[in-house]
Amino acid sequence: MGIVVQKYGGSSVADAASVKRVAQRIVATKKAGHDVVVVVSAMGDTTDELIDLANEVSPLPPARELDMLLTAGERISMAVLAMAIGNLGQEARSFTGSQAGVITDADHGRAKIIDVTPGRIEQAIAEGAIAIVAGFQGVSQTTKDITTLGRGGSDTTAVALAAALHADVCEIYSDVDGVFTADPRIVPTARRIPQISYEDCLEMAANGAKILHLRCVEYARRTNLPIHVRSSFSQKEGTWVVPAESVEKDAAMEAAIITGIAHDRSEAKITVVGVADKVGYAASVFSTLAEASINIDMIVQNISAAATGLTDISFTLPRSDGAKAMEALTRAKDAVGFERLQYDDSVGKVSVIGAGMRNAPGISATFFTALADAGVNIEMISTSEIRISVITAESQVDEAVRAAHAAFGLGSGEVEAVVYGGTGR
Amino acid sequence: MGIVVQKYGGSSVADAASVKRVAQRIVATKKAGHDVVVVVSAMGDTTDELIDLANEVSPLPPARELDMLLTAGERISMAVLAMAIGNLGQEARSFTGSQAGVITDADHGRAKIIDVTPGRIEQAIAEGAIAIVAGFQGVSQTTKDITTLGRGGSDTTAVALAAALHADVCEIYSDVDGVFTADPRIVPTARRIPQISYEDCLEMAANGAKILHLRCVEYARRTNLPIHVRSSFSQKEGTWVVPAESVEKDAAMEAAIITGIAHDRSEAKITVVGVADKVGYAASVFSTLAEASINIDMIVQNISAAATGLTDISFTLPRSDGAKAMEALTRAKDAVGFERLQYDDSVGKVSVIGAGMRNAPGISATFFTALADAGVNIEMISTSEIRISVITAESQVDEAVRAAHAAFGLGSGEVEAVVYGGTGR
Repeated sequence: MGIVVQKYGGSSVADAASVKRVAQRIVATKKAGHDVVVVVSAMGDTTDELIDLANEVSPLPPARELDMLLTAGERISMAVLAMAIGNLGQEARSFTGSQAGVITDADHGRAKIIDVTPGRIEQAIAEGAIAIVAGFQGVSQTTKDITTLGRGGSDTTAVALAAALHADVCEIYSDVDGVFTADPRIVPTARRIPQISYEDCLEMAANGAKILHLRCVEYARRTNLPIHVRSSFSQKEGTWVVPAESVEKDAAMEAAIITGIAHDRSEAKITVVGVADKVGYAASVFSTLAEASINIDMIVQNISAAATGLTDISFTLPRSDGAKAMEALTRAKDAVGFERLQYDDSVGKVSVIGAGMRNAPGISATFFTALADAGVNIEMISTSEIRISVITAESQVDEAVRAAHAAFGLGSGEVEAVVYGGTGR
Repeated sequence: MGIVVQKYGGSSVADAASVKRVAQRIVATKKAGHDVVVVVSAMGDTTDELIDLANEVSPLPPARELDMLLTAGERISMAVLAMAIGNLGQEARSFTGSQAGVITDADHGRAKIIDVTPGRIEQAIAEGAIAIVAGFQGVSQTTKDITTLGRGGSDTTAVALAAALHADVCEIYSDVDGVFTADPRIVPTARRIPQISYEDCLEMAANGAKILHLRCVEYARRTNLPIHVRSSFSQKEGTWVVPAESVEKDAAMEAAIITGIAHDRSEAKITVVGVADKVGYAASVFSTLAEASINIDMIVQNISAAATGLTDISFTLPRSDGAKAMEALTRAKDAVGFERLQYDDSVGKVSVIGAGMRNAPGISATFFTALADAGVNIEMISTSEIRISVITAESQVDEAVRAAHAAFGLGSGEVEAVVYGGTGR
């Protein structure tokens, strides 16, 4: 009967009725004999409303003040949740990130957790109370200013707190039943994955699966903390994210060397046409982008046309950085030396993920054949030890996901009833 | 060119447009060469909305959590105000009550300020920034929990901070032009009082004038801090609240031994009928009320009817405590020994206030004659050294205020254009 950390996303506490429902679940966990620590996001659309308010007074609000503003969102949800639990006869105490000892760097809007010193949380649970902690926020070690952790921040708060408290498990609640073999909105027969390794989960997250954020899975892996991803709208088991050696290999699972299919529609593709195919020219393209703080995902350099000595370089990047990248490259055109730029923001990425592929030959062949049979054109390819990704036209993403899912036999044969959506932050 | 502390109430920062307007005023003060510290209330109806939300999940929210919730209101307004100032090219940094060093006791919902240690505020202004501080909130010295100061809390924050910073002045902005000789909604010719002593201002506040709260005036008096009460909707001078010896005695003022007329419609009257007129019986009535934590305002004991040896005791109290008082007295009926109770919640109090009356005979006569001429019936009378109050029927309050205002020649003869309303908190 150890410590259970539960994290509830914004959709799980969207309104007073939802808060009361979540309160009942928390109290049930407490009554089952656990010490319970809850991390909560802002209610529903609160964060967006606060951002709108900020934009009404300033086109570019200072990051420090934006963090001060946005942290009001979790302050509201955590206090209301504590009240709802109190109304069920259990004592609950809410704590800001700062009070909970979430120490970060001073990088407002995307601060990193440096340390967690949860003395007040330990005291609260030692005294029999349920501790409610604001997700997404912390306090800077140097400036003592309030910070936010950026996307996935509440999940990361929960995992970091669970690790610091030596919790038995960190339960991440959202409106989804767990991690699926593919997005059930695209593949109705997609199966919930009962157990997934940190590594596979990281690849899923990094390649577009929206269940868990990269940072929180990385944090859990470093500390070997089990995460249980589940829905706050049902009592079903969800997906356990655990060390690879702990993933049970039942008969069905052993056959499935592929864990799942992820997809991502948030990238754009830039092609730098007519770069000199000599040492250093490609490097200067990417130095230019690095100086503009742009993260690159996939890179493909075409085979050089021997006659001209020129080549093309294509790469993908977050669509949100597209304009900035085109601008930086255009400015550097003469210095780098290339003919022209092509920008395509209607691409999508489809990835086949599974640690099982390490020892299984023919995965690429099966994947590419399936795409070809479905009439999906491959624009770029990238692989890691446990992943194969392709870039296709955005309009062909759904078809590509379905084809890959079927080719690797991932379906359950039945349509599982799930709600699917983003996890917010 | 010292430190100016400005406090803006909820109506001054009701929406984004108001926030921008206030930001301009703050920046103008900064550009005039002052160091500026701003205390701000929650925007418009935010506090009421948060209370509604709390009541949706719990009929009786725990006080600690209610404070955590309500403090989100000032967090929003202060961050948004800092952004609006930043947008005008001045650096502004917002600070919670806790960050600003507002140390309180642990009495949630009505905490008292124990100490103010504004190190971070001093640093911010030393670095040339405008400091924005959340009003109404602090942090408990013992529990380290977040507290709220209760009614008048933001004014008190401003005055306490101004005193700790040795500010030149604390400017309290609301939607009213200052302290008036009477409520201009009742007396259209009421005059703005240019200067008022702490003592007269305290009597005005204690007797129903809604401009400044008692606590904040008391705090200012203890530290001899000048308060300037003015409107954020105009550039007019308001009312200076200063030590009695600093009030300028110009010709017009010297004649005016009366500072103003206050009125209050928030009280009720209870009469305990048929109490034994012996030592200790009246005491037992008021002990009963004290045990129920009920504050009494005025008390009148009738002259005993010699034949019966019984008397009646009437007293006034906040209407909001009426039911509780009646209940406590009814329970104690046999122990105290009285015939019956009468409850009247349609009374009003009208007070004539002015330190000048100390040396001026005939004030009561003028007041009572004016009321009699206006047909106003006096139910109870209470006096202090610098105040005479009467209880009348609630329906006669307006008439009584007008009659007194005219009798003491307080009017300007002209109707001043003012907006009048409550100051919120």
